[in-house]
This record gives sequence, C-alpha cells and structure tokens, in this order.
Amino acid sequence: MTFEQQLEVYANLIIEFGVVLQPHQRLLISASTDHVALVRACTASAYQRGARHVAVFWRDDGVTLARHRFAPRDSFGELPAWYGSAANEATERGDAILNITGDDPKLLEGQDATLIALEQSTMVQARAVAYQHIFSSQINFSVAAAATPAWARSVFPHLEPAAAVDALWQAIFQATQVNQANPLEVWRAQCETTRERRELLQEKHFDALRFSGPGTKLEVGLHPNHLWTGGQLTTPSGITFMPNVPTYEVFTAPHRLRVNGTARGTKPASLEGGLVEGWSLEFKDGRVIRASAERGEAALHALLETDEGARFLGEVALVPAGSPVEKTNLLFQNILFDENTASHVALGRAYAFSIKGANAMDETQFVEAGGNYSEEHMDVMIGSSEIDVKRVHADGREEMILEQGQWVL
Amino acid sequence: MTFEQQLEVYANLIIEFGVVLQPHQRLLISASTDHVALVRACTASAYQRGARHVAVFWRDDGVTLARHRFAPRDSFGELPAWYGSAANEATERGDAILNITGDDPKLLEGQDATLIALEQSTMVQARAVAYQHIFSSQINFSVAAAATPAWARSVFPHLEPAAAVDALWQAIFQATQVNQANPLEVWRAQCETTRERRELLQEKHFDALRFSGPGTKLEVGLHPNHLWTGGQLTTPSGITFMPNVPTYEVFTAPHRLRVNGTARGTKPASLEGGLVEGWSLEFKDGRVIRASAERGEAALHALLETDEGARFLGEVALVPAGSPVEKTNLLFQNILFDENTASHVALGRAYAFSIKGANAMDETQFVEAGGNYSEEHMDVMIGSSEIDVKRVHADGREEMILEQGQWVL
Repeated sequence: MTFEQQLEVYANLIIEFGVVLQPHQRLLISASTDHVALVRACTASAYQRGARHVAVFWRDDGVTLARHRFAPRDSFGELPAWYGSAANEATERGDAILNITGDDPKLLEGQDATLIALEQSTMVQARAVAYQHIFSSQINFSVAAAATPAWARSVFPHLEPAAAVDALWQAIFQATQVNQANPLEVWRAQCETTRERRELLQEKHFDALRFSGPGTKLEVGLHPNHLWTGGQLTTPSGITFMPNVPTYEVFTAPHRLRVNGTARGTKPASLEGGLVEGWSLEFKDGRVIRASAERGEAALHALLETDEGARFLGEVALVPAGSPVEKTNLLFQNILFDENTASHVALGRAYAFSIKGANAMDETQFVEAGGNYSEEHMDVMIGSSEIDVKRVHADGREEMILEQGQWVL
Repeated sequence: MTFEQQLEVYANLIIEFGVVLQPHQRLLISASTDHVALVRACTASAYQRGARHVAVFWRDDGVTLARHRFAPRDSFGELPAWYGSAANEATERGDAILNITGDDPKLLEGQDATLIALEQSTMVQARAVAYQHIFSSQINFSVAAAATPAWARSVFPHLEPAAAVDALWQAIFQATQVNQANPLEVWRAQCETTRERRELLQEKHFDALRFSGPGTKLEVGLHPNHLWTGGQLTTPSGITFMPNVPTYEVFTAPHRLRVNGTARGTKPASLEGGLVEGWSLEFKDGRVIRASAERGEAALHALLETDEGARFLGEVALVPAGSPVEKTNLLFQNILFDENTASHVALGRAYAFSIKGANAMDETQFVEAGGNYSEEHMDVMIGSSEIDVKRVHADGREEMILEQGQWVL
C-alpha cells in the first residue's frame, strides 16, 4: 500500500469506527495546519459517508508561539467569541466532533507556564457547553492523531526530517492497527474484548486499587457508584462510537477524597508547558500534597494550580503490557498513544459517565458526591511491567489484577 | 536578502502600511492553510507592533474541493454560524482585518457553477455586518497575497513546482516593490502621487468616461456625486490605511443606469468557477444584456445571476500602463494583481465611499440614488495599451485622459 492508501484506510477507520458519522450529520474537525493531509482525507471520507457539512477549526503552532513570545502579558484570559461558539453550537446541534492531535510537544518550552495554563483554561471555559456534551457522551466524537514534522523530530531526534515523519506515520499505523489486513474487523474484535473485561470489572465491583513497584505505593479508592468504561461509548440517541483511535484501556473514576500514597511516573508527562520527566506525586485524602520532577517541574506545578480540582484524580485506567502501542517501543509524547502503553491516573476532571447517576448532577453536586471537577484532565502514567496492581475488597482482602503488567484477573 | 528576510519585509509592509495596525488593536487574518509562512510572519509583526490578539480564520482548498465533489447538492446554502460571526464580531469591536489571497485559480473548474455562486453568496450574507464595516471603511483593513504551489503552477505551468513557487514569490515582491531598498518610502511616495491624481480627477468632475479600442466601445456615465478613491482610505477614527497591497488604481462609481455599449475583456477574468477567457459584455442603460466568452462562459453567467445587481457596474477604475505589476508581464490570475495592470470595471456592488452621502443610506436608498448593490464585486479588465479613455463633459465635449494606456490628463 502507498502512503496515500494507508492514509485513506486510516481516515475511513476514524470516520466509520471512531466518530461513527451518521448520514446527514454535520462534522466539526479541530486540527492543526500541520494536519492538512489527514484533515482532507477525513473530510472526503465524511462526505462520502453522507455528511451534510464538514467544518474545520484550525490551529497553528507558529501563531500560538508568536502569541506566547510577543502578546501583552495581560491578554491571555481573552479570546474571540467564535473560538468557543464553533464547538458549542456544533455540539448543541448534535454534530459529530473529531479532534486531531499531534502537536509539537516542545512548542512552548521556555514560555511562561502560568500564561500557558491561563490560555488553556480560558479556552476550556469558552467551550464549556461543548465539553459538557462531549464528557457526557451526548454526541459522537473521536480523537485521532496525525504525524507532523515537529512531533516527528521530537520522537525521532536522530532521523532526517522526512524520514522522521515517515517513521512516525508508520508507528501511528502500527499503533492504530491500520497496517492490519482489515482494521475495522480488528477493532470490532478489540472492542469486544475490552467490553468483556469492562463487564467483568463492573461485576466484581471492588473497593480500591493498589499500585506497587519502584517508587510507587498508591491506593486509589474507587467511587462507590463507579462505572468501568473502555473501548466504545454510546450516545443517548444510540450511536455507539470509539472516542479514541487507538484505545486499549479500561478506566473508571476514583473517589476524589480516597487516594493516598505516592506515585512515581513510569513515563514522562507531555504537558502544555513541555515534557515533565522523573516526576512524583504524593496524595493525602485525594489531594496532591507534594509534586516534584527532575525536569519540567514548573509545568507540573502550573498544571496543579489550574484550579483546586487539578490536584485530585478524575480517572484510574488499567492497560496491560504488550498493546500494539507499547510494541512500538516509542515514547510518543502524545497522550493518545502514551496512555495506551501503561496503567495511569488522570489529574483533574472525572467523566460524568464514570459515576452512576452523575449525568443529572451539576458541578457542585458531582463534587459533593465524590466526583472530581476541574478544567484539566491530564493522564499521567504510573504502570509498567515492574508495577503490580491489586484490587482491594471492602473487607481489606487483596487480590492481584495486573501482575508485572499482565492481566491475572 | 534571503527569502525569510524578504518575507519579513513584506509582512511588515502589510501590517505597518497596509493594515496600519494600531497598538492594542486586535487583528483577524483570513487565510488559506497554504499561506502558513506569510500568516506567521504577519502574526509576529502584528504582535511586535502591539497587537492585543491575532486570530486566524483559515480555509483549505482540499476541504473546499471535497465539499463541491461530495456534499449533498441541497446543502450549499448552509454554513455554521461562526463562519459569519468571526468577522462580524471582529469588525463590530473595531478590530483590524487582513485578508490573504492566493488560491488555486482552477480549484473549482468543472464543479457546478450554480453551487459555487450559492456557496459564495451564502458566505457574503453570513458576513453582512463585516462587509458593511469594511465597504464603508469603518475599520482599517488590507488585502495582500501569498504564493502557493497551486497558484504558482497556474501562473508558471512550465516550471518545476518549487521553482514556480519561488518565481511567483519574486513576482509578488516585484509587484509590491518589496524588492526596493525602502518599500515603506516607495509606498508613501506612490500614495502621494495617487492622491494628487485622485484630487485632480475630483476637481475636474466630468460626466462620463468613454473606452474605445479593439472590440470595445463603452460609455460609463459617472454618478453625479461620484468620489474618486485610490491609494489610501481613512477610518472615522482617523486611521489612514492602504486597503490593497499593491495598488496603483484610481476609481469611482458609475451611475448604475448610465452604462452603454460593448466592452471586450483585455485579460481573462478569474472567477470562482475558473478562468473566463475571451469574454465580452454588452450593456444597455446600465444592465448587461449579453455576455459571452470563448472559455468559461458558464462561470460568467453564474456570476451575473448571483443577483440583479451583479448585472450592473459598481466601479470604474483607471490604471496607467507600466505599473510594477504590469512590468512583471504576468497574468497573475488573481484580481489583486491583475486589476493593477489595466483599467477595469467591476460587476456588482459599488463602494459607499465612492458616492457622496451614501454612508447614511440603506440599500434601497443607495440603489434609488444611482448606486449599485449586489453581493458580488468582481473586477474585469477592459484597458490596455490599445485602449483610449476619454472624458466626456456634460455638454458632450470629449478630451483624452489615457491615450494608449498613458495618462495625458
């Protein structure tokens, strides 16, 4: 297959099995100017499957960087209204959403971390309506990635630019199984396996998870009404879609006040402010009370200071060793891939669909009920083949779930 | 100078002498994903001159083409609200506007001309507030161009792709005098010359213009309250800006009902539906009663059928032979340049600033007063070194203005 053919297969997988675009539905794509090739392939695929309209909300690394370098320091809390209304109006109308990631992980290194966090939170606030629809699966949406020169340089620093982009595309095609003979069939089977795992975990309904290994001794108390999710989601109108391409995780919501102990990162965290390496977090009654990093500590602190909820967990996810993403042996520096290499927790917002009955709650009720609310939702990896995960029953009994990264449940 | 240095000089000319961006002002750039390099240079230049925020409304040729190829035929009258509100909100707030042109002139060749016109008019309607602000110079704005691979291929079909893009950039730098030692000084002098010419024409205040030459015998009656414009405009708040980079024309408004005779195009017209070559228009009492073309006639007819006003003239412009644009000896297939190679008329909307007192009129009053209203404004070239332009006094006396393309006034 030529690259153009692979890209077409990938675009079809994203539109047909990720977004699951419906005939006559409109689609809003959010993408970078570096993603033109994939955006065009997805647009053509969407129209060929009956889309009524495809709109693209573009961003550009150069424009973003120029703002951080030169714009007035007191202007980062402002945005034109259409930056929010584009996504808000689309989700209110029931349009599908596709977010294409793949940005320069080092773009804003050295820029003011407080302004980076303020810019980010201003955007999240402007898109509050859209995020509410997305986080409660009111509409079908998906996130997928496109290789770019800057991202490829970051992942393959020793390759020539063109070769690095090619290598990153091939890694994406491997991680998303686009290089298989029939990717849609592969993903149908993968989602079936994930569904079985998820239903088993749901049925067992245990009280807490314990992570242990080098530098890590963390107990994550689960919410009493926790729901396990993974693979696909379903909208109220009955569209079953896959929110991430690829996805190999099952996850649920911790109780926001029942997290204790220390977690040491098993992978660097790719934050807005740059890579954070050698990081460690200490929790007491759910709250991060100490955060350190060997590199990029300022970006980690800026993340935690986004709001109070950014210091609490909103997700705990289990990922076995040996996923197609892990088999690439790469640090993608992109959460869509890196979160599928290892078990992880997320600082910030819990998904309403992770707690039974939460869709009907407002923010205050959600937090009072033990859910976590924040403008942030940042996955950080704490699993590896050196980490055991045990389940804890309400009576204190322990049982192994993942032993050295492998499912034993 | 390296290309990057030329691009920076060009961006500074656009921001400082085209848009004349004010400190603390916001800027909205409208551009194609093929214009990334110039957008980034203009964004940096704007921030360095004190811009509070720079937003970019991007378009993409591939996304546009996919819509025309595959989208439902009954969907071209619809657009997401933010396609209009982005520009409307910006102009209402007093932001500056920069429109970057330079698109594939042949992108939509072979597509349905009616749908092309409908898409265009739907966009114009959605941006009605913005166009009202722009056409009455309520805010400072400018239009400039960036070379793209598709445009370069169209202008230099016999060159290799990279060489064609380089050649087009150098032609743009020549036409905009960015290749001069001090482009800002050159443009200050050029605008001064244009101002003197404009004031002389205003003072003489004649009744009509007669164009004559091969295939052309056209009388364009001027509006009794016509105002000559050219070079710079000034906002009510006192910002003097240059709406086109480059510009070598002086122009005013015809009386919409006083145009008679036949005009033969001296250059192809680059319409949305593709190039229109060997075209001819016959006017009676202002209205186009016959339109033909050797190539692209459907696009010409679609243009004329946009609305009733598209069959009447809204502008008549005088451009001498020998401008830096004409000296490139190129057909740019881009109106920003081609209109500065020859005298021309525009089908469609007249600018309110071309008729004294029109700023206070609504559309109906404007048309009743002899102005022309349309969603269209399309310049078509009727001047050349073979064409004479005479002025006509109210008593019927004739005097030469441009003889074989040269000013004799």
